[in-house]
Amino acid sequence: MNRVRIFDTTLRDGEQAPGFSMTEEGKRKMARTLAALNVDVIEAGFAAASPGDARAIHAIAGEIEGPIICSLARSTRGDIEAAAQALAPATRKRIHIFLGTSPLHREFKLKLDKGQVIDAIRDSVAFARGFTDDVEFSAEDAIRTERDFLVEALSVAAAAGATTLNVPDTVGYTTPDEIYDLFRHLGDQVERGPEVIFSAHCHDDLGMAVANSLAAVRGGARQVECAINGIGERAGNCALEDVVMALKTRSDAFGVTTDVDTTKIMAASRMLAQVTNVSPPRNKAIVGANAFAHEAGIHQHGVLQNRETYEIMKPEDIGLATDGIVLGKHSGRHALAKRANALGFALEGAALDRAFAAFKEVADEVGLVDDARLAALLAAQDGRGDDKLWTLSRVEIRAPATPQAHPVARVELEHGNRGRLTDLASAPGALDAAFLAVSQIMGVPARVDGLDMQYVAADPEDRASDGQGASVLVEIRIDAEGEVFSGRARDRDILPCCVAAYVDAASNAAAVRRARAHSTPAQRAA
Amino acid sequence: MNRVRIFDTTLRDGEQAPGFSMTEEGKRKMARTLAALNVDVIEAGFAAASPGDARAIHAIAGEIEGPIICSLARSTRGDIEAAAQALAPATRKRIHIFLGTSPLHREFKLKLDKGQVIDAIRDSVAFARGFTDDVEFSAEDAIRTERDFLVEALSVAAAAGATTLNVPDTVGYTTPDEIYDLFRHLGDQVERGPEVIFSAHCHDDLGMAVANSLAAVRGGARQVECAINGIGERAGNCALEDVVMALKTRSDAFGVTTDVDTTKIMAASRMLAQVTNVSPPRNKAIVGANAFAHEAGIHQHGVLQNRETYEIMKPEDIGLATDGIVLGKHSGRHALAKRANALGFALEGAALDRAFAAFKEVADEVGLVDDARLAALLAAQDGRGDDKLWTLSRVEIRAPATPQAHPVARVELEHGNRGRLTDLASAPGALDAAFLAVSQIMGVPARVDGLDMQYVAADPEDRASDGQGASVLVEIRIDAEGEVFSGRARDRDILPCCVAAYVDAASNAAAVRRARAHSTPAQRAA
Repeated sequence: MNRVRIFDTTLRDGEQAPGFSMTEEGKRKMARTLAALNVDVIEAGFAAASPGDARAIHAIAGEIEGPIICSLARSTRGDIEAAAQALAPATRKRIHIFLGTSPLHREFKLKLDKGQVIDAIRDSVAFARGFTDDVEFSAEDAIRTERDFLVEALSVAAAAGATTLNVPDTVGYTTPDEIYDLFRHLGDQVERGPEVIFSAHCHDDLGMAVANSLAAVRGGARQVECAINGIGERAGNCALEDVVMALKTRSDAFGVTTDVDTTKIMAASRMLAQVTNVSPPRNKAIVGANAFAHEAGIHQHGVLQNRETYEIMKPEDIGLATDGIVLGKHSGRHALAKRANALGFALEGAALDRAFAAFKEVADEVGLVDDARLAALLAAQDGRGDDKLWTLSRVEIRAPATPQAHPVARVELEHGNRGRLTDLASAPGALDAAFLAVSQIMGVPARVDGLDMQYVAADPEDRASDGQGASVLVEIRIDAEGEVFSGRARDRDILPCCVAAYVDAASNAAAVRRARAHSTPAQRAA
Repeated sequence: MNRVRIFDTTLRDGEQAPGFSMTEEGKRKMARTLAALNVDVIEAGFAAASPGDARAIHAIAGEIEGPIICSLARSTRGDIEAAAQALAPATRKRIHIFLGTSPLHREFKLKLDKGQVIDAIRDSVAFARGFTDDVEFSAEDAIRTERDFLVEALSVAAAAGATTLNVPDTVGYTTPDEIYDLFRHLGDQVERGPEVIFSAHCHDDLGMAVANSLAAVRGGARQVECAINGIGERAGNCALEDVVMALKTRSDAFGVTTDVDTTKIMAASRMLAQVTNVSPPRNKAIVGANAFAHEAGIHQHGVLQNRETYEIMKPEDIGLATDGIVLGKHSGRHALAKRANALGFALEGAALDRAFAAFKEVADEVGLVDDARLAALLAAQDGRGDDKLWTLSRVEIRAPATPQAHPVARVELEHGNRGRLTDLASAPGALDAAFLAVSQIMGVPARVDGLDMQYVAADPEDRASDGQGASVLVEIRIDAEGEVFSGRARDRDILPCCVAAYVDAASNAAAVRRARAHSTPAQRAA
């Protein structure tokens, strides 16, 4: 019994949180990703909550092989029937019944006394067993439930046929010590057969969902309910990636395993971000953009000597390829020289000094300096690049003559050595037409991978707006023949700003290619 | 000794993380906010890291009254002198010296043996005491340091005059049980005077920074190092708001207090978001947009009966005013009826059924439904509003004739009853000119509070793009005479899309005002 089941509730508790709604197609994509991650249970929704939820569960149940597919249900026949119906196509199905057991939930939400709660648990679990042998019972708000009553409620659920007994910290109130002690107590006192498993479901309202889940495991829980990127009601559920990687990284302390394929974790996090349009924060454990990124000179120096000085996991373990070095204003020469070398520029002595000074100037301006921008900067420094890169001088859109026709963009770019160059292009949208015209002029075919705009309101105190009214700041990512480059621009007008950002990104792509074409084999090997 | 000091490192460890750079002006704003929050110590930077860091520390030291101002320093005379110089104007100043003590740091990063590390600690702490009586020593990577050597290192630091002994979990590796045990051990074994305080500095790499900090406090730590929104290297530091609110909410379990004014927590979180341009995620504990938001029908029903069914803290305690109800596709009738009532619409019976159906349709389309959108919908439902709100039919920009002149926008709107209306406006930017023209036509003066754009790439699999090439999705927030309204639009072209979103937001503002003007006192009281 040293295996902990991972019960994923991204599609139920996660999806239920404001801002994380998913379409049926999005849920199906996510379910496939969770199956690839090899979680034990996918809670696909709450069938009785809406016809859309029921449809999504049904679709997932019919498609996904491997994990158990689960639907939530209140302790009513209607909810249980809806769950059973939605789950019908599944090879392995679970009905997950919940009922509040705490005084607050009994008195204010349910208006039921203890005896009525016990009866509802017995009846609903037994009813659900008519549809499947795999029934989970959750004592909602278990943490704030009287211990004796919780033992009684869970014993009744087990006697009625529940095979998983879930103990949710519904409001994220408990601490590791308390929940450890509670699981020990329940393990001793709840009457159940040997096959019955205890489960923890922790929320992060006080920032302790992961530690509480792990403490529950130490106390005997053999299922953890969690969600990708830690999404869920309010502050979210325990993050799947955190609990899985903590159990793996600290197997010395916990002595249990999961069946999750950790190398699929980044892919799952990214799929969820795509499906919900919400990325995890940079500083999210395991999957945040910064989790394996080091910008400060001292940290970079350490990581370049030995990654373990500042890392306890390998990025490969979660399916991430990175050397962990991010170049920005806090970075030092060690890191710059190493990255330059990887890009084909051997820097030392005065050349390194010059490049470092130029790099710091750019970093102060743009924050983080990615490979493309660095290559452009280094190429300019050592004379291999052009003194002046491309800049946008004018963009005009001609509206289509008929509604069926496409708009035409006329773009004029300025090049340091080549002067002004103009081209026209047409596309269904004005923006795409302008981007296409830029690509034609520069000879850099690309498609837009992402575009973020910030509107900077006119603010007399904000020096960046120069007292000139509002401006926009655009950051763009383009995919040029399989490689991603970024660009940015700031302008008062929105269309020129987007196009200028595209020109910046395409310039970075061109600079990297020029630098590669000119680097000698010796430089590449250096 | 039941008071825990809050040492804020937002401006040092936080600022050092990729993507969280702050300008000097931003750091000063943040320092003022931290002083209002009443933290005990503000670590304002790392003076020797860069001239910019030293300047910011100096400025903060000269301006902030109340908290101790602190600078980080390596264990070298140069670093300590730089810290002392930057801190010179401060009324209360602390020099914070760090040196790696773990085998990995000694061997790979520092290339020092144990004796050399001990000598460096003794010399640097004594040297720093020449500048101030308040010296903190951090044994970097303390968690992975041999216990005996850690006891020796901290005892030497205390003997040399360190008044705070910090025990960082530099790489976020430890667990609550381990760190509790370690602090008990250090409390027993480290030789030091009665005034010396132990401090914890936890990182969130395995999602346990908050729980580990709290376990350290139970083990005897009386300072916690933390950062607003949990920013910091990699997965970030312990979040200040989490640890402070956990100590407050669970004072029964921890039995200690802090001096933080918790009602300033939301303001501090928002100031950091403004200064770094990075908001905390929706599901961040305490300060995330969802921390006190309930969209699911079952949760809303409970919260409407008694907030404590799903909340363990009061939003007022962190300076947030909200009833916690968010309306979206998961919401039920209870919540809709209550919110409608607050907006002046008494709904029951068939009217509630109709409104609920219309609401669900809009929620499926836009996700979350804010007050303005709801009021517009309800007004349309009960015949008080117009059948058809404003829509954008055309926007044109005339480029300025000279570089000094401003562009002119010509906007044409379509109104259900009033037909087409056109106006012109001029502003420094084309976007602002178009917004102004819209406001003139609709009679809704407003300024843009925020604008987010997503670029939806042309993707044959994405039904939303209709095979019509890329499109943009714009969400806008406008401030109309002190009230904030939101709007959104999707279009193939960027300028019309921004203007259409503005029209949507201004329509919502107009609808709310119309509804208010028409509601009877009885409806308002209902």
